[in-house]
Amino acid sequence: MAALQRRLAEFAVARDWGQYHTPKNLAAALSVEAGELVEIFQWLTPEESARVMADRESAARVEDEVADVLAYLLQFCDVLGVDALAALAAKIDRNEKRFPAPGNGHSME
Amino acid sequence: MAALQRRLAEFAVARDWGQYHTPKNLAAALSVEAGELVEIFQWLTPEESARVMADRESAARVEDEVADVLAYLLQFCDVLGVDALAALAAKIDRNEKRFPAPGNGHSME
Amino acid sequence: MAALQRRLAEFAVARDWGQYHTPKNLAAALSVEAGELVEIFQWLTPEESARVMADRESAARVEDEVADVLAYLLQFCDVLGVDALAALAAKIDRNEKRFPAPGNGHSME
Amino acid sequence: MAALQRRLAEFAVARDWGQYHTPKNLAAALSVEAGELVEIFQWLTPEESARVMADRESAARVEDEVADVLAYLLQFCDVLGVDALAALAAKIDRNEKRFPAPGNGHSME
Repeated sequence: MAALQRRLAEFAVARDWGQYHTPKNLAAALSVEAGELVEIFQWLTPEESARVMADRESAARVEDEVADVLAYLLQFCDVLGVDALAALAAKIDRNEKRFPAPGNGHSME
Repeated sequence: MAALQRRLAEFAVARDWGQYHTPKNLAAALSVEAGELVEIFQWLTPEESARVMADRESAARVEDEVADVLAYLLQFCDVLGVDALAALAAKIDRNEKRFPAPGNGHSME
Repeated sequence: MAALQRRLAEFAVARDWGQYHTPKNLAAALSVEAGELVEIFQWLTPEESARVMADRESAARVEDEVADVLAYLLQFCDVLGVDALAALAAKIDRNEKRFPAPGNGHSME
Repeated sequence: MAALQRRLAEFAVARDWGQYHTPKNLAAALSVEAGELVEIFQWLTPEESARVMADRESAARVEDEVADVLAYLLQFCDVLGVDALAALAAKIDRNEKRFPAPGNGHSME
């Protein structure tokens, strides 16, 4: 992931795109790409949505939008110095306390 | 990243949340969290947006939303069997051909 | 609708919010509110989503988010001089040609 | 606005699209279109965003996305029986109490 983040940063520098890559713009771009991912599923039933990778064309579209979302997330984190993996690990730790699993702690005894 | 993806999957299984985690719902949840990230920046100037991590409270909010976006992206990829890092690497390869850097290939000579 | 648009404009002027109300920021705010509307439905089945107004609290939340979306849409149109109703009427005209109804024109004869 | 809402409803009925028009799907479609509106502005400076209607092509794109956002908002409200204008009027009333204008009540005296 760090290697991809570096490639994205070099890509932007080489094209002089840094001026556009404010955190505000990158957050907007991320949400635009997330919207394009939602668009693939918007009229599908839950069951149809689970079979989306069986169709070659829609599978390629899903992978393309996933790549775009991850690209803007990594670029956003890069310009702000945020460690996305550490942020997620900390969040999972917090959520494990906030939403204890039913079997943990023998809560029914 | 694979370890976090596994923790998220176990977390959902332990709470019987799998029934809610259709690709359609996870894509929607991802876009909702991307919207919450945009919300932090919506009234800021580009310059203010670049200083958002200097304030302790808004820095924590940014990290929290980044964690949420990444969590839903990883869960989405997990239920569909998409390799996000491979998808992004392939996309960067394509983009390097599509948008050649000005200095590459000595295009001005 | 014109009266509400005027009230929103006066509201913003009285609070000196005009400086924040660039088209870019208002479009972002509109998408943030649309995300909050999606959030109400994100884990619901299609059937549950159709019954959302039966619960007093979620009905109030839906109405609140609808108001926010419409407010930002009207303010966006106001700052750019866009007539939303005329734009929609023109779009429906175009779509009626693009997607002819099956019964119209006896296309099967 | 009521006439446009009726045209949209008839349009959907004539094409048998009612099955897709759950509140959940219409809210998602609304947010997708809001994302497409944001996309127009995502790399623009605040100043450039204010001049977007001066370019014929981007003006048409803005009007098209405004029409789409309004169309899905009206269809969403139609299937749930929400009165968008009444919801917005009520919200402005509440906000006038929540954010009093500086000049009201002579707060500086």
